[in-house]
Amino acid sequence: MTPYTAEALAECHRKITPYIHRTPVLRSRLLDELSGASLFFKCENFQRGGSYKIRGATHALLVKMEEGPLPGVVTHSSGNFAQALSLAAKNLGIPAYIVMPQNAPEVKKQGVREYGGRIFECAPTLEAREREAARIGRETGAVFIHPSNDPWVMLGQGTACKELLEEVEALDFAVAPVGGGGLLGGTALAAAFFGSNCQAIGAEPLAVDDAYRSLKAGKILGNATTDTIADGLKTVLGSYTFPVIQEYVNTIVRVTEEEIVGAMRLVWERMKIVIEPSSAVTLAAVLREPALFRGKRTGLLISGGNVDLGRLPF
Amino acid sequence: MTPYTAEALAECHRKITPYIHRTPVLRSRLLDELSGASLFFKCENFQRGGSYKIRGATHALLVKMEEGPLPGVVTHSSGNFAQALSLAAKNLGIPAYIVMPQNAPEVKKQGVREYGGRIFECAPTLEAREREAARIGRETGAVFIHPSNDPWVMLGQGTACKELLEEVEALDFAVAPVGGGGLLGGTALAAAFFGSNCQAIGAEPLAVDDAYRSLKAGKILGNATTDTIADGLKTVLGSYTFPVIQEYVNTIVRVTEEEIVGAMRLVWERMKIVIEPSSAVTLAAVLREPALFRGKRTGLLISGGNVDLGRLPF
Repeated sequence: MTPYTAEALAECHRKITPYIHRTPVLRSRLLDELSGASLFFKCENFQRGGSYKIRGATHALLVKMEEGPLPGVVTHSSGNFAQALSLAAKNLGIPAYIVMPQNAPEVKKQGVREYGGRIFECAPTLEAREREAARIGRETGAVFIHPSNDPWVMLGQGTACKELLEEVEALDFAVAPVGGGGLLGGTALAAAFFGSNCQAIGAEPLAVDDAYRSLKAGKILGNATTDTIADGLKTVLGSYTFPVIQEYVNTIVRVTEEEIVGAMRLVWERMKIVIEPSSAVTLAAVLREPALFRGKRTGLLISGGNVDLGRLPF
Repeated sequence: MTPYTAEALAECHRKITPYIHRTPVLRSRLLDELSGASLFFKCENFQRGGSYKIRGATHALLVKMEEGPLPGVVTHSSGNFAQALSLAAKNLGIPAYIVMPQNAPEVKKQGVREYGGRIFECAPTLEAREREAARIGRETGAVFIHPSNDPWVMLGQGTACKELLEEVEALDFAVAPVGGGGLLGGTALAAAFFGSNCQAIGAEPLAVDDAYRSLKAGKILGNATTDTIADGLKTVLGSYTFPVIQEYVNTIVRVTEEEIVGAMRLVWERMKIVIEPSSAVTLAAVLREPALFRGKRTGLLISGGNVDLGRLPF
């Protein structure tokens, strides 16, 4: 069955509400002036675990728990999803096993440990990660949860845009970063179900523009490189996220690394909030396409704030 | 007449409200755990102009305007007050003349210009600054406004703590950074007038601990150095701020440079907000004196978020 209905999204939101923060929607007079648009920043950098990922992780866990006893969950991720799944599992009293490459930044490992996740290191290849996750699944009975390509995860991520639409009337656009497509897919569903003529728009680093090219080609394409500062957006679309994005998203705006860093700096300096590069692509996209956004009520999904302060691009 | 009454502070708050933001009070589960206290962060980094200084500047202007026609205002400041006075004057349609040392950071000058202030450069000595400000006053009729040592400025700064007390019940402590004493003095007045047994506590860099020593000595003392990362706290108490602090403040906690940077980093990483070093002294003070703050409902005056991102201490 397809879980993509307004009712399913509303039900998902009800279920996860006890486990997440309702994050604020911030505005900036100066960035409104600079962009010519009316901007509404949905600040998931203030979310538990530092990113929106706790929404989808919690939803996936709750759905699995309804299906029967859940001896544990396992994922492979070097990023925000590892922390989010650890925290979501801790909240629900379930063990979380996190497969991370040996060379993952210490700050990420520390985050996982703080939230009670158990780390298993492996070689820094996708094959090694999948093999290790499969082994853990066999030995512990833990169920694998994909960071983005999972219908329940995608629905969970959509609740951020649903909250935004509840707070901001007559939103024209909801701009979300696109990596694996969980947030953009969920945002597109929320915009379709709960917006009144609200269009979801993707924002993507030019260096890893697989989603842009995949939409053009009508099939999932990869990236030749992962060389972007937006470390959350290096992944590619999947079998669940691609069809949703294909159906609901018409526009993906691509931005350069320089534009990402510039937008990130603007937000830090002017709004005094810490956002990660993967979130800054949204403002970079708005600033890159002034004709598209001028005069429009535009929501920006600020996906997270987990930045290594020792390695800033400024 | 002394302006320090609950009625005067309430009246000041009513007057300046149209010109300021009501800034949010944020919490952090993790920093509560770390400190053993219940912390309430009054986020003046989100204030207009990036710091609480707009409150006092606006109040001083409004009071002067009631006294008669105001052809302009002048101050000497290389910090947040220069921006705040420029913005406050712009809001009220009055010219602002800002005397700044030639070597002031470009980012500070730019801030003043953006808010419509007119900059006059001078040699980087207090004498040169005062002489230039006096000259501008004579030639334009502009009235001099001191960044901190002014009763109306101090009352204005107190409105931040007044708002905090309106939002948070039964606050035990209100911790404010102390430089010139405008914020600490105003905070102490607000705590005395509107708190129920709420004590104001000063937080000061050890490197420029003039307020701590002045309280001990019973007279205003200077600093041998201005070598602190908390650039807003290099100034010393004045004839208006010292007596108020003497009467209402019993405790000033001194913190090292390392503690300031550590606290600043904690807030950026964990709360995802940009605060300046001069604000981080408050959290540093709480973390330094766990026995004093344990179990206490403690407000922290986060004074501002104007940081040069190109020169971070991380």
